[in-house]
Amino acid sequence: MTGARAPGWVAVAGLGPGNAALVTPEVAAALAQASDVVGYAPYVARVPLRAGLARHPSDNRVELDRAALALDLAAAGRRVVVVSSGDPGVFAMASALFEAAEGRAMLPDIRILPGITAMLAAAARAGAPLGHDFCAINLSDNLKPMAVIEHRIRHAAQGGFAMAFYNPRSAARPHQFARVLDLLREECEPARLLVFARAVTTPDERLLTVTLAEAEPQMADMRTVVIVGNEATRRVGRWVYTPRGAAR
Amino acid sequence: MTGARAPGWVAVAGLGPGNAALVTPEVAAALAQASDVVGYAPYVARVPLRAGLARHPSDNRVELDRAALALDLAAAGRRVVVVSSGDPGVFAMASALFEAAEGRAMLPDIRILPGITAMLAAAARAGAPLGHDFCAINLSDNLKPMAVIEHRIRHAAQGGFAMAFYNPRSAARPHQFARVLDLLREECEPARLLVFARAVTTPDERLLTVTLAEAEPQMADMRTVVIVGNEATRRVGRWVYTPRGAAR
Repeated sequence: MTGARAPGWVAVAGLGPGNAALVTPEVAAALAQASDVVGYAPYVARVPLRAGLARHPSDNRVELDRAALALDLAAAGRRVVVVSSGDPGVFAMASALFEAAEGRAMLPDIRILPGITAMLAAAARAGAPLGHDFCAINLSDNLKPMAVIEHRIRHAAQGGFAMAFYNPRSAARPHQFARVLDLLREECEPARLLVFARAVTTPDERLLTVTLAEAEPQMADMRTVVIVGNEATRRVGRWVYTPRGAAR
Repeated sequence: MTGARAPGWVAVAGLGPGNAALVTPEVAAALAQASDVVGYAPYVARVPLRAGLARHPSDNRVELDRAALALDLAAAGRRVVVVSSGDPGVFAMASALFEAAEGRAMLPDIRILPGITAMLAAAARAGAPLGHDFCAINLSDNLKPMAVIEHRIRHAAQGGFAMAFYNPRSAARPHQFARVLDLLREECEPARLLVFARAVTTPDERLLTVTLAEAEPQMADMRTVVIVGNEATRRVGRWVYTPRGAAR
């Protein structure tokens, strides 16, 4: 093997919710070793420029193209970090990488490096609203029909789960989240607590706790995670938490 | 205020799954500033001794006593870090702290510092089995009846969620997880993929992927997180992932 090219690799890394103090040392080390950073442009922009580092920013909604690029670069011997916000395994690039890997005869060395996902950063800022059994649901209907989303929300509510909604509302689907609130009102009591957590740990952070009766669609946007408590979720001081025991 | 005692504080911090490279800089900074560390003994043992740091290890299942101690120490002006494994907001000490805070007239400064929770560390090691909508369920029946656990698993399965089970099996309840597997077999197809992820990121790490037909209760213990895929969860190479789109 003398003189052989060093093998390439791909690490899919979670940058956390925004604050550099929430980037794990493992992810920082991978970025320090990388020859290439691949990802959605706003996340690539969070990686500082340095000599020897090529940055490959791309648009939203091209996850499979981005994943294929990362695999191709690694196959050519490059050291590639695919960056995701939050955790790469939660509604982010890790699944896309494996989808792109299907059918390839050879895979490079792959590592998935976890990060602080948005719902857990949001929960920490609010208190402990996910302190008992909970569900994470992506409200984007890009990749699944609205009927599936509604079906899941009903089962989550009837099962007594707290819920965290990712991508609750976008310019392309302004009315969908109003429908989600209507559905929650069919399944849950008006006093149920909701936390709208926007851009947590960044300078744009905004936290709003309301009851389901008070909730309005425009309280959410694409940078918001919405947490719906279970029926036992309560306030203490400025905090919101869900007790560890079952509601009944 | 000249001469006034500096105010105390409590930070409830997630140490991640075990590897020091997964402790966030935010948590490391809080530990560096702490006068007191409070927690379940194995987690306190993960914090290095240093001059000026008092360690208060305690037994399992005394979460409320531990939380009250932390609040008392902070009220006396101490700088207290309550340590949890994983993330403090997921089946850990953050909810217990707020439970203990109920009814106190004055609360100290409180911060919840997120960490890498076990299911996301386990998912990263396995691939991306939680890459679509999922639920997190604590199988411990210390604080909720088994009927509630069964009710939630049924709704999670019928809703098409992947699932992550915390505390699946202990010496005190060796038979319960067999019942959970039976229940999954009623709700899911035999080819459904399960990942048994034990002590991930530690020297004791062990990862096992099997079908539901192959799963056996003794594959889990107290250090295991069990991930149940959804019906679309599949293998590619040595990896397990859940596609980003809906199963149907």
